[in-house]
Amino acid sequence: MSPRHCDVPSLVADVGGTNTRVALAEGSTVLPDSVRKYRNADHPGVVSLLEHYLATAGRVACSMACVAVAGPVRDGVAELTNVDWRIDSEGISQVTGARTVALLNDLQAEGHALDHVAPSYLREIMPRSGAGSSAAQLVIVVGTGFNAAVIHRLAPGRYVAEAEAGHVNMPVGNDADLRLAQFIEARNGFADVEDVLSGRGIETIDAWLGHREDARSRMCATEIVQALGSCDPRAEATLRVFVRLLGVAAGNLALTTLPFGGIYLVGGVSRAIAPYLTDLGFAGAFRDKGRFSGFMGSFGVSVIEDDCTALTGCASYLESSF
Amino acid sequence: MSPRHCDVPSLVADVGGTNTRVALAEGSTVLPDSVRKYRNADHPGVVSLLEHYLATAGRVACSMACVAVAGPVRDGVAELTNVDWRIDSEGISQVTGARTVALLNDLQAEGHALDHVAPSYLREIMPRSGAGSSAAQLVIVVGTGFNAAVIHRLAPGRYVAEAEAGHVNMPVGNDADLRLAQFIEARNGFADVEDVLSGRGIETIDAWLGHREDARSRMCATEIVQALGSCDPRAEATLRVFVRLLGVAAGNLALTTLPFGGIYLVGGVSRAIAPYLTDLGFAGAFRDKGRFSGFMGSFGVSVIEDDCTALTGCASYLESSF
Repeated sequence: MSPRHCDVPSLVADVGGTNTRVALAEGSTVLPDSVRKYRNADHPGVVSLLEHYLATAGRVACSMACVAVAGPVRDGVAELTNVDWRIDSEGISQVTGARTVALLNDLQAEGHALDHVAPSYLREIMPRSGAGSSAAQLVIVVGTGFNAAVIHRLAPGRYVAEAEAGHVNMPVGNDADLRLAQFIEARNGFADVEDVLSGRGIETIDAWLGHREDARSRMCATEIVQALGSCDPRAEATLRVFVRLLGVAAGNLALTTLPFGGIYLVGGVSRAIAPYLTDLGFAGAFRDKGRFSGFMGSFGVSVIEDDCTALTGCASYLESSF
Repeated sequence: MSPRHCDVPSLVADVGGTNTRVALAEGSTVLPDSVRKYRNADHPGVVSLLEHYLATAGRVACSMACVAVAGPVRDGVAELTNVDWRIDSEGISQVTGARTVALLNDLQAEGHALDHVAPSYLREIMPRSGAGSSAAQLVIVVGTGFNAAVIHRLAPGRYVAEAEAGHVNMPVGNDADLRLAQFIEARNGFADVEDVLSGRGIETIDAWLGHREDARSRMCATEIVQALGSCDPRAEATLRVFVRLLGVAAGNLALTTLPFGGIYLVGGVSRAIAPYLTDLGFAGAFRDKGRFSGFMGSFGVSVIEDDCTALTGCASYLESSF
């Protein structure tokens, strides 16, 4: 860490469903040496986690703090969707000493980062046809959960619209999809997009395909994606279903939000699967919209291969808002 | 018509997939006596239609004109999705004499009208829990086609986001839905939301249920809805499927756009089916989102029972933008 670089740095944090990343920022720049990653399971809450971070960083005094949270934010309070944590501005202010505290939905933070992502971090899956700088952008996160945010670039600045896009009905396009949905409904009562398009979604598809019934030990999502790298045919069967459903869901979001400024896939699962999206048929599934198939070529799709984008978004938000 | 009321009126028009409505407006008020409705099939294009209107109105001189169109608008040109008409600002300017001409997507026009709809025109289907005036609103049109628009109420004014929401995959929740989707795919190659949630969608569901195979003559969508009013059990079976799918699709749009400021159903089919939405189970289908079912109670749903809302939106847009 380099507290010497920042007389009055900002503290930025990204509280995901599984991990939390914390860093210091100067303006819209996250200081690379300052980034630390924590497992949520090792901490009772975000305040103790930030306390630990700041103690390690040498009790840096922060003027501003911005925390991105994987859940809805209302009136300065965030409830995590996948962890039993409640995060409020006051607690953040007390532990950091920051007088200015912002809580953002993690997807909003990703939206605020888009103009600051280095090209080397962008893996293009489908090329984007030319679009003006005022065109909307769409961020889709696939990780512990699934969600999306639309970034409208208006005259006064960026406006990021929130969503709970992971909780719409799972797309069902054929008999196999319907059986998968019914497999999930038998366990959960309802099959939503996140039930298939997330880390546990990969495991669910794998279980549904019966891959866990044989002699090999049960694999977690990370192992399934790793097995794909070793040309494991069962991992390929699982991830081919996953990628097709991701293409369908991303296409539906594109038609609903018209992001002519580009679609950006973020999150741990997006990054892990990025090298395989093309071979596993993402583009075909994305474009499969009947007479709108040609229109679907208007949308470019890229994966952001930087796991600190939300931190950059927090820094950018603090810089542009206060 | 009352040209005497308006020294320098605006001309407003709403070009739908089947009909075009034209009127004069003063400020954000559409002059009720001036509204005329034309069948598109009777005219070669919008210019000749407006020429006919203005001739009937006594060659009124218009300072501004705004035309809402059921299709995408790009660079001052609108292409209709369901009629072979091309509409451009220059043609509108020439025929009306207006120096200021705006072309809007029809859903954008509906969005700009929301703050001007008289309460007597609102039929509440699901009550809305309290939400701030800054909360987003969602307009869903069900008529010749299906589409949606999100209205963001930001500090500088309304921002209406466009969509092609009728062309996402048709929701499939059970075996019967999948058979319906396959029935449509056998004819079109692809089953989208609009294939079931539109006037022709009602006819498609009716045909799929086999109601056209018996001795009774084939009915159009309007007749099916009228038959429901006479307690026809076959019309009820058709419209029960229609209303359930509408509830599912509206719920998915709500989760994708979070319209805590309310959901407004517009369009001819919405108005025709409005009295039956509650009895046919709209609310249950809308809320059926697993662990998000309680959350779905955050969204109020109303039908706007005024078929001139888009005209009001055009007038409101001209007043607030120029």
